[in-house]
Amino acid sequence: MMNEDCVMILSGGLDSTVLLYHLVDEGRFPLALTFDYGQKHGREIAMARLSAKELGIPHVVLTVPLDTIFSSSSLLHGGEDIPEGDYSIENQKSTVVPNRNMILLSYAVGVAEDRGLKRVYYGAHRNDRAVYPDCRPEFIEALGTAARSGTYNQVELLAPFMTWSKTDIVMRGHALGVPFEHTWSCYKGHDAPCGRCGTCRERKGAFRNAGLNDPGERQWKR
Amino acid sequence: MMNEDCVMILSGGLDSTVLLYHLVDEGRFPLALTFDYGQKHGREIAMARLSAKELGIPHVVLTVPLDTIFSSSSLLHGGEDIPEGDYSIENQKSTVVPNRNMILLSYAVGVAEDRGLKRVYYGAHRNDRAVYPDCRPEFIEALGTAARSGTYNQVELLAPFMTWSKTDIVMRGHALGVPFEHTWSCYKGHDAPCGRCGTCRERKGAFRNAGLNDPGERQWKR
Repeated sequence: MMNEDCVMILSGGLDSTVLLYHLVDEGRFPLALTFDYGQKHGREIAMARLSAKELGIPHVVLTVPLDTIFSSSSLLHGGEDIPEGDYSIENQKSTVVPNRNMILLSYAVGVAEDRGLKRVYYGAHRNDRAVYPDCRPEFIEALGTAARSGTYNQVELLAPFMTWSKTDIVMRGHALGVPFEHTWSCYKGHDAPCGRCGTCRERKGAFRNAGLNDPGERQWKR
Repeated sequence: MMNEDCVMILSGGLDSTVLLYHLVDEGRFPLALTFDYGQKHGREIAMARLSAKELGIPHVVLTVPLDTIFSSSSLLHGGEDIPEGDYSIENQKSTVVPNRNMILLSYAVGVAEDRGLKRVYYGAHRNDRAVYPDCRPEFIEALGTAARSGTYNQVELLAPFMTWSKTDIVMRGHALGVPFEHTWSCYKGHDAPCGRCGTCRERKGAFRNAGLNDPGERQWKR
């Protein structure tokens, strides 16, 4: 039986699912970590399970109920409604979960350290920067230094898509044959993507720019 | 009613309790955060409650069950026995909880961001460095950069005792009138401190070097 050689964060969204396929294509055998952190779009967790299963990748779901700690995010259960409109800073700001990425990445680094693994991957990309300060290169670099110096294993934090656009990710996923219908982007907690929130619009734009059809789109056209 | 002006991590141990008194002496009104993370010495949590109450400081206990995630630490429920002997790297290494400080500090930064506060304090000191990589200055500095760049509030991470020895902390606590009997150091989960584990020995040494009696020592002499 193969042993995992790195940890990766798999939300079940488009970016991290393409990252999973990308890592496997590069010959890696990651342990996929998914966080059930109280997000309204918990539906992404089922998608993560599906993708890990499809690729035969070990998968752990960690429950980290941030909705019981933080009151200020529309992304979490108990928060205000998810805004509709562009994927812009004004529109998306209410969806920011305070320091979410540092919290989830610090768990992932801990899991790597605990299992003697030296690398943690995650799917932050260029378009996220404007809205989410914890997707910026200076954050990723500083947290990487902290992870390396704060662990015996000198765990590395890696964001291979950091300089990529969402369109680049869609094109890479297409080349890898990612079943995009098994990824979930909509921030609302409904049965089908709303097509109107910032993440639905961002996804639409990325497929349009890539000149591809989104097999997930059928759901919101109904 | 006063509003808290910063967040601080209060474990209920000696260092963070002196830090609490130190911050209050400097005119700060912190929100004290204690983590119930599955440590065998959960007794420190009751001490943290006591100290916060004595000073009239708002206090929140967050449950973050790291013992259900990590298998490799003797500090956690389910781990092997706490080692006895000096506070040295060989002796204490089994007590390291993988990436613990980054996980707990990232929650604290999130709480600060959620409440619009700009500072997070914690009680890492010079003696911890050899054993715990996540108490080293380069870790603290890098995580501080990550916290600042990863939050809208540009939250600062501060470790005022970073260059102090444990003896310095004991002397400062003595000058501030800290009731040391309301602090808990022993890593074992017993009713009284064992007097033999690394943290008990480190504490004894610090009081001895400071030329002071430890009112907590009466308990282990019985």
